[in-house]
Amino acid sequence: MTQATGNLVRQRTENGITTVTLSHPERRNSLSMAMLEALSDVFTAIEQDSETRVVVLAAEGHVFCAGHDLREMRSQFDSHEFQLALFQQCSKVMQQIVNLPQPVIARVAGVATAAGCQLVASCDLAVAEQGARFATPGVNIGLFCSTPMVALSRNVSRKHAMEMLLTGELIDAPRAESIGLVNRVVAADVLDETVYRMAATIASKSGHTLKIGKSAFYRQLEMPLSDAYEYTAEVMAANACTEDAQEGISAFLEKRDPNWKHQ
Amino acid sequence: MTQATGNLVRQRTENGITTVTLSHPERRNSLSMAMLEALSDVFTAIEQDSETRVVVLAAEGHVFCAGHDLREMRSQFDSHEFQLALFQQCSKVMQQIVNLPQPVIARVAGVATAAGCQLVASCDLAVAEQGARFATPGVNIGLFCSTPMVALSRNVSRKHAMEMLLTGELIDAPRAESIGLVNRVVAADVLDETVYRMAATIASKSGHTLKIGKSAFYRQLEMPLSDAYEYTAEVMAANACTEDAQEGISAFLEKRDPNWKHQ
Amino acid sequence: MTQATGNLVRQRTENGITTVTLSHPERRNSLSMAMLEALSDVFTAIEQDSETRVVVLAAEGHVFCAGHDLREMRSQFDSHEFQLALFQQCSKVMQQIVNLPQPVIARVAGVATAAGCQLVASCDLAVAEQGARFATPGVNIGLFCSTPMVALSRNVSRKHAMEMLLTGELIDAPRAESIGLVNRVVAADVLDETVYRMAATIASKSGHTLKIGKSAFYRQLEMPLSDAYEYTAEVMAANACTEDAQEGISAFLEKRDPNWKHQ
Repeated sequence: MTQATGNLVRQRTENGITTVTLSHPERRNSLSMAMLEALSDVFTAIEQDSETRVVVLAAEGHVFCAGHDLREMRSQFDSHEFQLALFQQCSKVMQQIVNLPQPVIARVAGVATAAGCQLVASCDLAVAEQGARFATPGVNIGLFCSTPMVALSRNVSRKHAMEMLLTGELIDAPRAESIGLVNRVVAADVLDETVYRMAATIASKSGHTLKIGKSAFYRQLEMPLSDAYEYTAEVMAANACTEDAQEGISAFLEKRDPNWKHQ
Repeated sequence: MTQATGNLVRQRTENGITTVTLSHPERRNSLSMAMLEALSDVFTAIEQDSETRVVVLAAEGHVFCAGHDLREMRSQFDSHEFQLALFQQCSKVMQQIVNLPQPVIARVAGVATAAGCQLVASCDLAVAEQGARFATPGVNIGLFCSTPMVALSRNVSRKHAMEMLLTGELIDAPRAESIGLVNRVVAADVLDETVYRMAATIASKSGHTLKIGKSAFYRQLEMPLSDAYEYTAEVMAANACTEDAQEGISAFLEKRDPNWKHQ
Repeated sequence: MTQATGNLVRQRTENGITTVTLSHPERRNSLSMAMLEALSDVFTAIEQDSETRVVVLAAEGHVFCAGHDLREMRSQFDSHEFQLALFQQCSKVMQQIVNLPQPVIARVAGVATAAGCQLVASCDLAVAEQGARFATPGVNIGLFCSTPMVALSRNVSRKHAMEMLLTGELIDAPRAESIGLVNRVVAADVLDETVYRMAATIASKSGHTLKIGKSAFYRQLEMPLSDAYEYTAEVMAANACTEDAQEGISAFLEKRDPNWKHQ
């Protein structure tokens, strides 16, 4: 646990898997400015941490994350400057997840709403327990979920996103799976087993390869097809010339386990 | 009913919900130039109408909408000018739906084909009765559904869009739901109940907030991630400084119903 | 069978349907440089072939395609130049499929992995037998599937793509259907019947119309909405002035079969 995170975020690393846990259940793990700064510090540190090959984003208590801290927002109703800084800080954290070299898996138990739902959408992968529920309910309080929808609308089709955004209603975990917001839904008592098996699978790969791939994935998504191919052909040729790819290919052809140089 | 719509489109507003009804069932509600002009006039008027908070797009008779009026097109086979004006007018109407500040829900009973299917795809939300069917059958008559596919391919994944476009075959309502073309499929006898309950849910929100959100939704969709966040952080900070957001947040924290200033 | 393809790719045309078959089952139909060049030659020829109205992409043996030829890649580990040329050639072939005027249907039996999965994703349509499986397992050998993900991520939502890319695990045919990678999954003994019925349906359309539509489809997908409408309105007006559209519309209104001028 780093100092900057205070008590808001806990962090532990085991077998190359770093679990980042929102730890403010008494405030429904809401994304106050302090929580967002703590998360930002954690992700900045992980980015440099060669021991972390996969990140699991979890939360303490019965609510995964309830979005922004409305009491804090109300205390600053007069300050456009504060509100802007808040949403910019939130947008920064979400993009840190996308830009982190390591894959990030959301482990969702309970309710994830507004910027909490955005957190789930921003992770590379997400596993939810059967009782998890999701909403972008800003419209109910006159504050449309405009930053959450950036992540949401890049996960699910537009009519599904619009239904959540315009009605503000909760969807259950199976619905979230069917529209593509989460990868898998499992019983609560096997949630950790499922998440950490998936994390361990990914942690067994070359960290250098994961970094190359994750970064190229989000970059090529924003390109026209021909540019995307021009770019990724170069990425893949460079990847093929790395020690890990040559070790991996050789190991495969020799029917043995690879021995990664760059975990 | 406005004068410009002649008898082709009916319109009535109740409780903030304006129902726009294609009313030319004897011509399968086809999108003749006159029908497109009538629709355009209706949407232009609604855009300015502060009483309308949600729009329901419905149709009279057993066919929701059969697309363009082929007899009219044939009568102008010699005129590239007319054909271009027709598809431009059609594209204008579809974009008016997207750009309308109020959310639009398609209420689909019967068959929606070609530009009729495009109408459904262009709405923010769509609810269909179990017998509804959808197709982009232009390929059957040598006229590929090129404008309809703009809306279709922004609703469903490319292989699903391509199957409809290349085969020209009808898909049924459950298939349309599973590929994301409509939000929900219900029995015909609860279609109105479902549509108007959804419309009423949305009409209970702040109209000003809906307008901010809908407009930002489609705009951010076309931006790279970092631009989308920069843009929406500003939108959300400005939204947070509006009367309705401050009333909504206060009402939520005080556990009371909000009293919107800007319906 | 053209000379350039050697024995690696077979080709036969019947009733306007050209079946292109990967024919190197002893090497799991892997995409060696020679195989990629053979495929490129075949597609270049088909592009000019007025007899071909639809293409079916099939494979001999129990593996649809295992991706790149790892032995060949290993023999060139020292040559960044070769690796780059390989992935550029592969990217060229995938884009040839997209840019081919004729629709291409993947007929998938067995396993399609890495660039083999990319082949399926690059086709306009795909039908798989129930035992077919798909993976982008490059991450297992230190070589992230960066070029395959260009096609994959344009077929399926990002969390689904990321799960395949980060875990490297196989998904079965029903899962591939549910995430949108293939259009239909059928029992192995009706695979050909399903594929060729679909191909015959498409081959019965005007080839000129298919060409207009397929080309416009991929082009408009990369445009903002208003540009897409401006472009396709022009495409559709020009299409409406072609002989085939005017014949098709007239035939429809006269309740007779159309007689296409441009098959």
